[in-house]
Amino acid sequence: MSEVESFFKSAFSVDNVIFGFDGGDLKVLLIQRGAAPYKGKWALPGDLVYPNEDLDTAAERVLEQLTGLRGVYLEQVKAFGAVDRHPLGRVITVAYFSLIKISDYTVTPASFAQSAKWHTVTKVGDLAFDHNEILESCLKKLRRKVRMTPIGFELLPPKFTLTELQQLYESILIPPKSKKRIDKRNFRKKILSTNLLHDLNEVQEGVAHRPAKLYRFDRNKYEQLIAEGYSFDI
Amino acid sequence: MSEVESFFKSAFSVDNVIFGFDGGDLKVLLIQRGAAPYKGKWALPGDLVYPNEDLDTAAERVLEQLTGLRGVYLEQVKAFGAVDRHPLGRVITVAYFSLIKISDYTVTPASFAQSAKWHTVTKVGDLAFDHNEILESCLKKLRRKVRMTPIGFELLPPKFTLTELQQLYESILIPPKSKKRIDKRNFRKKILSTNLLHDLNEVQEGVAHRPAKLYRFDRNKYEQLIAEGYSFDI
Repeated sequence: MSEVESFFKSAFSVDNVIFGFDGGDLKVLLIQRGAAPYKGKWALPGDLVYPNEDLDTAAERVLEQLTGLRGVYLEQVKAFGAVDRHPLGRVITVAYFSLIKISDYTVTPASFAQSAKWHTVTKVGDLAFDHNEILESCLKKLRRKVRMTPIGFELLPPKFTLTELQQLYESILIPPKSKKRIDKRNFRKKILSTNLLHDLNEVQEGVAHRPAKLYRFDRNKYEQLIAEGYSFDI
Repeated sequence: MSEVESFFKSAFSVDNVIFGFDGGDLKVLLIQRGAAPYKGKWALPGDLVYPNEDLDTAAERVLEQLTGLRGVYLEQVKAFGAVDRHPLGRVITVAYFSLIKISDYTVTPASFAQSAKWHTVTKVGDLAFDHNEILESCLKKLRRKVRMTPIGFELLPPKFTLTELQQLYESILIPPKSKKRIDKRNFRKKILSTNLLHDLNEVQEGVAHRPAKLYRFDRNKYEQLIAEGYSFDI
């Protein structure tokens, strides 16, 4: 037993990469650390996992304390366990990523939430701990996954235009300095051919330019197609 | 600090789901536990992570001690951290899956390797800890991934027939009691159209039936196609 006991000297945490989309850029919600280590640095929101708490519950707790949101898209991505990643001792962290609609987000009363701010994912600078590496890993997963499953819609308002949808895909898939854009004709053809967009027979209101048609993602239809062996591919 | 210190009472481990293919079934390498907890039960090979060891290194160590193999396919899948998953205390485990060629595997001198045995993945029975759940999770990942990346070839000998390749895909993708089979014509057409199989202009030796043509997976070609934006899809 004593040999085994020597291993029980570590802690573990969860860190949440919370993505949002403001119509232009893909954003990530960061908090500014109020205490050492890395005081003053921007960091991913996270916390040590309580002794009586499982990993998913801890991730949900951090997300809810910070954003007030429950039941939003949350998925474990990867455990990070480099020996020296935490100055206070051996701490492995389990990274989650979450997709929320920025319009649903309001600052919660929790004290650490007061220091939270949306940052453009490509302009986060030097983050605390190994959080740049964690963010990069979650971004990679998002890029892969957004093409194979319709998770992108989690980031859009319930009603959206095809231009907004294309801008979302561009903000996720195209590197920041690239001049490349997704071809509009091909994108529309591809996305409409999935039959997963429900034409609302409505148009945008209060816009200066010619108002565009509004669509809604048809989740029921998607579930039904999946059961029939369909696979999403954009 | 004292509040933080109360969190440093956990341990973490790695567990390896090592898949192999014997020409008929998809197999997983299990060890029979020689000590409590779960003495006598079959379990995934794993170990506590040393204080000076990162997660990938620990997974590589477990794999090498058990199989003698280095440099084989190894990938982190998921962290499992249910509160009561380990009877000795709070232990979260990080699951890895590995793909090896069964022909490369020989029992190593390590004492725990003596109790290792290949099991058909669908007939493992009741495993120690939460290892059934971990195996299921890694199987799901393998099923998803084998269709989108050419990792299946890691499980085959360097030279293989199209029938062997199809049997591999069937052993991974088709549920055990299903009578469904992959359509031979479609499968061959699809796999040959990838242009990733190199026809060796050789045939099987020492078989009773008409010897089939042998192929090799062309990894260089694959790397080249990937760089050009190709995506594998079977």
